[in-house]
Amino acid sequence: MLVVKIGGTEGVHFGPICRDVAQLVQQGQRLVLVHGGSAEANALGEALGHPPRFVTSPSGFTSRYTDRKTLEIFAMAVLGKVNALLVEQLLSLGVPAVGLTGMDGRLLQAKRKETIRVVEKGKRKVLRGDYTGKIQEVHRDLLDRLLEGGYVPVLAPLAVSEKGEMLNVDADRAAAMVAAAMQADTLVLLTGAPGLLRAFPDESTLIPRLPAARLDEAMEYAQGRMKKKVLAAREALEGGVPRVIIADGRQEERPLLRALEGAGTWIEASMAGG
Amino acid sequence: MLVVKIGGTEGVHFGPICRDVAQLVQQGQRLVLVHGGSAEANALGEALGHPPRFVTSPSGFTSRYTDRKTLEIFAMAVLGKVNALLVEQLLSLGVPAVGLTGMDGRLLQAKRKETIRVVEKGKRKVLRGDYTGKIQEVHRDLLDRLLEGGYVPVLAPLAVSEKGEMLNVDADRAAAMVAAAMQADTLVLLTGAPGLLRAFPDESTLIPRLPAARLDEAMEYAQGRMKKKVLAAREALEGGVPRVIIADGRQEERPLLRALEGAGTWIEASMAGG
Repeated sequence: MLVVKIGGTEGVHFGPICRDVAQLVQQGQRLVLVHGGSAEANALGEALGHPPRFVTSPSGFTSRYTDRKTLEIFAMAVLGKVNALLVEQLLSLGVPAVGLTGMDGRLLQAKRKETIRVVEKGKRKVLRGDYTGKIQEVHRDLLDRLLEGGYVPVLAPLAVSEKGEMLNVDADRAAAMVAAAMQADTLVLLTGAPGLLRAFPDESTLIPRLPAARLDEAMEYAQGRMKKKVLAAREALEGGVPRVIIADGRQEERPLLRALEGAGTWIEASMAGG
Repeated sequence: MLVVKIGGTEGVHFGPICRDVAQLVQQGQRLVLVHGGSAEANALGEALGHPPRFVTSPSGFTSRYTDRKTLEIFAMAVLGKVNALLVEQLLSLGVPAVGLTGMDGRLLQAKRKETIRVVEKGKRKVLRGDYTGKIQEVHRDLLDRLLEGGYVPVLAPLAVSEKGEMLNVDADRAAAMVAAAMQADTLVLLTGAPGLLRAFPDESTLIPRLPAARLDEAMEYAQGRMKKKVLAAREALEGGVPRVIIADGRQEERPLLRALEGAGTWIEASMAGG
């Protein structure tokens, strides 16, 4: 069982990744695809006169402040555009894709963070009315049912609260939670960088292998979005996934297959070191 | 097995319909929901500076001319907005909804009409580059699998061509094809009118019962969008669905339950008359 997360970042090409997925599926690989869509959501928000508002938490994480209107724009972009186009591309390659969100059948149940703490211009503030969630439970029945039927689930990063509210969730962490719940052998996070860099943005400082014991250290030098990937990697490993690969989704040739063959940063629980 | 189509017309309220769906599902009713979203697609197209272009065929049917950009806007609206909000509303009522499009698992396979014949200002023209389809095959396996698991499929009107292209399809006719393929007992088309009217828009001319043998006649007096519903009714009946109900989706109280209890226009194969 393989879980692959495709970044919504500019530079990540869906075509080559979908071709690799088609080849793996044809070889009998059971696979779940999770995707982002931030770039599309930002562009749509701009076009509709409701540009995104990014906020930084006291601990340094950047996220999208998601009021109800932003949530609906996010859903239109990630489900109505990114998910639909991915499903279309996979179908044209003969992959029996099924587009989903974490709302479907309460697949991803999350706790809504109604208020978020942010730092703006050096001042701490509390923002209300946010529709972002932290995933708490993965109900894998729907995925099992689809995989048994030979389908390839393609999952957009929306979840549902206990009350039934749609919530925006982080796609990397959603992929990690799904990989853990599905007892995947491998989680691959394809992104707009060659992997984890010791000195961002110098790509020659790629870390090819990282023992899980060194993840705390990695949280120090990971920059920006990469922090969330390291966090997602840790969540997956703690959830029992033996291997997480952070690799380059910008490659035109075999980006996913190359990652599985050894490219990018491999993080394994069983690696010696620390 | 019940198939319910909810119109995307103004005036049709999702809330009361979803409450009825929740009650029926709780009573053990197997149900598939199909929805439109034209109004949302039009509004989004306007907001994005790509307003819809409606064309009329030589035989008098009105449809949306769907170039690739219009198709992507249509997908954002019907899947990313209408479908997501319906799933959210159903979940909040305890219904285990799963949002789908006809692309998923090639559920609705359609033939692309690459060129369409239209009449504009009294002149016949041929338009190219259209992404509209006519459904040719329904692959029901995905629906069966979800229904077996106790899920309620919620289907957006997108289909896939043999080549794997996303296509816009008519939601009424999609519902009819699904009802036939699923051997539904009843297809309910909920719309912005009390049913089929002999003299549109006079609502006192509602036809409460119509034998299938009189559908040809109904095609004569049905106006505008209602023509497609009559066509959909015929397709469902020809496909073996014994009963089609065209009823009022604008009701605040029990719109779907009332339809099943006798409201609207009931069209049955077995009715005497002709």
